[in-house]
Amino acid sequence: MSGNEALTKYAGAFIDELAKSGVKKIVISPGSRSTPLALLAMEHPDLDCYVLVDERSAAFFAMGAAKAGKEPVAILCTSGTAAANYFPAVIEACLSRVPLVVITADRPHELRDVGAPQTIDQVRLYGNFVKWFQDLPLAEVSGTMLKFVRTVSARAVHTAKQNPAGPVHINFPLREPLLPAEDFFSGEMPAAPRVVFRDQVMTLDEREFAALSSRLPEKGLFICGPMEMADDRFFRSLLRLAEALHYPVLADPLSQLRSRAPEHSPLVDSYDAFLRNPDVRRSLKPELIIRFGAMPVSKALHFYLQEHGEVPQWVVDSGRGFRDPAYGGSEWIYCDESVFCEEMLKHPAPFRTAGEWEGTWKSMNARAKKIMAEIGGEEGIAEGKIFYHLPEFLPDHAALYVGNSMPIRDMDSFFFACQKPVRVYGNRGASGIDGVVSSAMGASLFHPHTYLLIGDLSFYHDLNGLLAAKLYGLNLTVVLINNNGGGIFSLLPQAERPKYFEALFGTPTDLDFKHAARLYGAYYACPETWEEFCGTMAKVRDMDGLKIVEVRTGRKRNAAIRKGLWAKVSREIAGLPREDGR
Amino acid sequence: MSGNEALTKYAGAFIDELAKSGVKKIVISPGSRSTPLALLAMEHPDLDCYVLVDERSAAFFAMGAAKAGKEPVAILCTSGTAAANYFPAVIEACLSRVPLVVITADRPHELRDVGAPQTIDQVRLYGNFVKWFQDLPLAEVSGTMLKFVRTVSARAVHTAKQNPAGPVHINFPLREPLLPAEDFFSGEMPAAPRVVFRDQVMTLDEREFAALSSRLPEKGLFICGPMEMADDRFFRSLLRLAEALHYPVLADPLSQLRSRAPEHSPLVDSYDAFLRNPDVRRSLKPELIIRFGAMPVSKALHFYLQEHGEVPQWVVDSGRGFRDPAYGGSEWIYCDESVFCEEMLKHPAPFRTAGEWEGTWKSMNARAKKIMAEIGGEEGIAEGKIFYHLPEFLPDHAALYVGNSMPIRDMDSFFFACQKPVRVYGNRGASGIDGVVSSAMGASLFHPHTYLLIGDLSFYHDLNGLLAAKLYGLNLTVVLINNNGGGIFSLLPQAERPKYFEALFGTPTDLDFKHAARLYGAYYACPETWEEFCGTMAKVRDMDGLKIVEVRTGRKRNAAIRKGLWAKVSREIAGLPREDGR
Repeated sequence: MSGNEALTKYAGAFIDELAKSGVKKIVISPGSRSTPLALLAMEHPDLDCYVLVDERSAAFFAMGAAKAGKEPVAILCTSGTAAANYFPAVIEACLSRVPLVVITADRPHELRDVGAPQTIDQVRLYGNFVKWFQDLPLAEVSGTMLKFVRTVSARAVHTAKQNPAGPVHINFPLREPLLPAEDFFSGEMPAAPRVVFRDQVMTLDEREFAALSSRLPEKGLFICGPMEMADDRFFRSLLRLAEALHYPVLADPLSQLRSRAPEHSPLVDSYDAFLRNPDVRRSLKPELIIRFGAMPVSKALHFYLQEHGEVPQWVVDSGRGFRDPAYGGSEWIYCDESVFCEEMLKHPAPFRTAGEWEGTWKSMNARAKKIMAEIGGEEGIAEGKIFYHLPEFLPDHAALYVGNSMPIRDMDSFFFACQKPVRVYGNRGASGIDGVVSSAMGASLFHPHTYLLIGDLSFYHDLNGLLAAKLYGLNLTVVLINNNGGGIFSLLPQAERPKYFEALFGTPTDLDFKHAARLYGAYYACPETWEEFCGTMAKVRDMDGLKIVEVRTGRKRNAAIRKGLWAKVSREIAGLPREDGR
Repeated sequence: MSGNEALTKYAGAFIDELAKSGVKKIVISPGSRSTPLALLAMEHPDLDCYVLVDERSAAFFAMGAAKAGKEPVAILCTSGTAAANYFPAVIEACLSRVPLVVITADRPHELRDVGAPQTIDQVRLYGNFVKWFQDLPLAEVSGTMLKFVRTVSARAVHTAKQNPAGPVHINFPLREPLLPAEDFFSGEMPAAPRVVFRDQVMTLDEREFAALSSRLPEKGLFICGPMEMADDRFFRSLLRLAEALHYPVLADPLSQLRSRAPEHSPLVDSYDAFLRNPDVRRSLKPELIIRFGAMPVSKALHFYLQEHGEVPQWVVDSGRGFRDPAYGGSEWIYCDESVFCEEMLKHPAPFRTAGEWEGTWKSMNARAKKIMAEIGGEEGIAEGKIFYHLPEFLPDHAALYVGNSMPIRDMDSFFFACQKPVRVYGNRGASGIDGVVSSAMGASLFHPHTYLLIGDLSFYHDLNGLLAAKLYGLNLTVVLINNNGGGIFSLLPQAERPKYFEALFGTPTDLDFKHAARLYGAYYACPETWEEFCGTMAKVRDMDGLKIVEVRTGRKRNAAIRKGLWAKVSREIAGLPREDGR
């Protein structure tokens, strides 16, 4: 058998088992060394291939797709710095628990560390940010080696999916000639995957649930952070449990709960506003906190958790992590979140009627929300106002991808509970401003209507991500909030340093993104009034393809609006005397 | 002393010592956690600060600047994936031996691995691609700790510069509050650096030079690969030695020799063309090969080295590396390259008159070059023709930055020796198509006229790099060779697979880069005829700022032109009968 055929059988078995193990999509970045794997992936009948040149963007695209599709997505690139460009997305996937199968083509061993071109040390390239690493040997077609390579493929996919999900890395050395035989998969293929994994249901001992249940106090509180990959079973069971216990549920914008809670549920969505007041935080001392998901974005909530560090806090985490930067957690409950809620519902001890505790949170929330909702009447276009009115613009089953820095915070402040079924995503693993456009593009593969809300710096950072829409006709509306620089710094102490503020923190780029829209063939509009904005949002709702709706806002004005509203909430909720101007 | 003042003194000492140790430029990417270091860098009187949002681009920008300036450049970013975006440039700097001081701000230890935002494990983030790593402790102002932090700073700079130069990584944890005191450097600062390193002159024992010299045969050959950071001393001494020995010098386009050799020097610049013929390779068997620099780009030369693997081959490398993918090296001479040439010149044993060996190479080169030069008369705009005529367009002391994949190969084929003093750069450490625009931008800080020759995929990959020109008014002419995809694959076996060729290898993006030019405020022209192209090149020569000269070419046509010329060289040099059509 020629080397070529050995390569075909070996690489073909690897690719075939990827598909049989549940990978449906693979994002390929072009290159020479990866040729056999790329060609075989194209030929495989069960793999959808996407080809994207910029590996940084390609990896975020795959990450967004994996998150939205709740399925492992593979990425494949050639040797050299191509693989290093994957690093930011690999880290984000690791920290946000998204299954990614990273396949890097490599030079054979005799070309490593001898100055050969496009050759870098790819062994353990991503350090501890991947759950599993395998440096494959060169193609061999003995029975053992074909079993081996199929097993590696199956293990890679399962390990990526296994809770906590995350990236795995397979380094694949390939020696020339690199062309595999054609039509390989039209030959005889195994009917089933070679290796199947059946994995645990994460639960606790029955007696532990009973014990936990017996300890549920009156003043309990649920806090739900980002749960982007959770399913309806969790949302339903958590809301039922909260209603039964009359515990308020503080719901981060990425918890998915804000668009899933029935109208009179104990959902609290304006805590970020009223917990900014230290007296309010003090007065709302709970007896138990039960947390789900990653840490919410709200800094006020962070302070609340920090200040009530002596209160028992259960952290329910099926990913068996330790996500607790406020150091409030006292008991870690490593159990499936849905199972936890369902089991707690089975122990009827704590069922009680509504009391003062729930009422206080609800009325506090209602009063804060009423004030924060004043943004809706703000004159012209204001950043927060966009988020407040967002549900009106969205079709049902839309997906929102929300950029980091200001957009996710505006989402927290102004995107209130609504009865519109939407999914909300953000890159909150490492909370970077990088890769967000590409992530949203990837997510759009799974949603008929995807909206990306993003600031201008983050948009610029990942402008390359727009190419995917052009190449694959993706449906995405970008709401580009252009305040010409880094808006968040106007809310931070850095704003007190005018001398270098614009140079280091404001960092205006003065880019006219109309040209970026033209470059990528996007529909583009830059409405100047609120009425125009509403009209544009209505118009793009029924348009296919890439739409960029840019709004130009001012950093100073929008910082002042937010501060004004927060101060008003703080004042009115606490009945405190008005502080002088701040 | 408040935490703030401790922070100022500690971080200030670090920044001050960076400058005193020889860092003149620092490229900062905005962020919150890095605030104290960024503000102090801005305030330091001896540091030039550049602020670039995309960290991937920022790091390549710094790498290009460090290479062109032959001095260490620092980069600073905030915590999280920001630091991961540096990875491709860190790898390129490592493999191409460019001094880079990478400073990543980090969260303090209590916020690591507990789900805090923008927090990733930054300890040894770049693995073995950095020469030195330090994870600093938090600010402290004891005498010992101030000495410590200054010493780390000085060691970082020296280690980056030390041969082989490369990147070092300092991870700097910072705890809030993050604002340092103002005007710190107007206070009393040490007059001199705290730590100074005096490092070896790399030489061999006198007797070794004598012994080596006595072994110089008649049929010797110098091969000079990329030597982008070498100085004139090396070029002069190598050329003198070659003339004395009558050894031909095979000069890679990045060897800098093609624009530095006197007219009748034994420079060989068309070896890539005639060494494609296996009979020619066989007939030119040397008795000794002496190599300098990294591996040349020519694949034909690679085969030549491989096939003459039994011929003694000395690899002179002051970086004490092992750059020898053809496995021809038999003796490693770890010695300064200039010292080596100068010492060999002192041992007069081998001085001899010109012989047949030198003559064969010279006439072979002349004949091959004459054929390759036919590209100059090719109709209209052809890719190779641009490189052939390049010297005519360039002002003296111009710098060329040459993209990977096709441009560097066309440079090798068609950029012949000329009497115009230019510097030629490329990213040949890992030979990626990423970061090339930014690298050229960085290099432009040190040259009055910089020209970037780049293909469309590589240009797209690093489009963000154009922002630097807009923000800092940099002088750069981009010659964008747009063949709408990956031209190199048309010359590789992949071209035999039409079914997936365009999807996987051709990968056309159909981008109209005129819009990219507008986005970044560049002068833009897209000449359609050769005369227009010449006119445009003459015009932009006297223009400041960013100029993009796009030429649209065809992948198939240009592959055919190259193949035709190579076949003709092969035929005519070897006197072989014409092969049928290929």
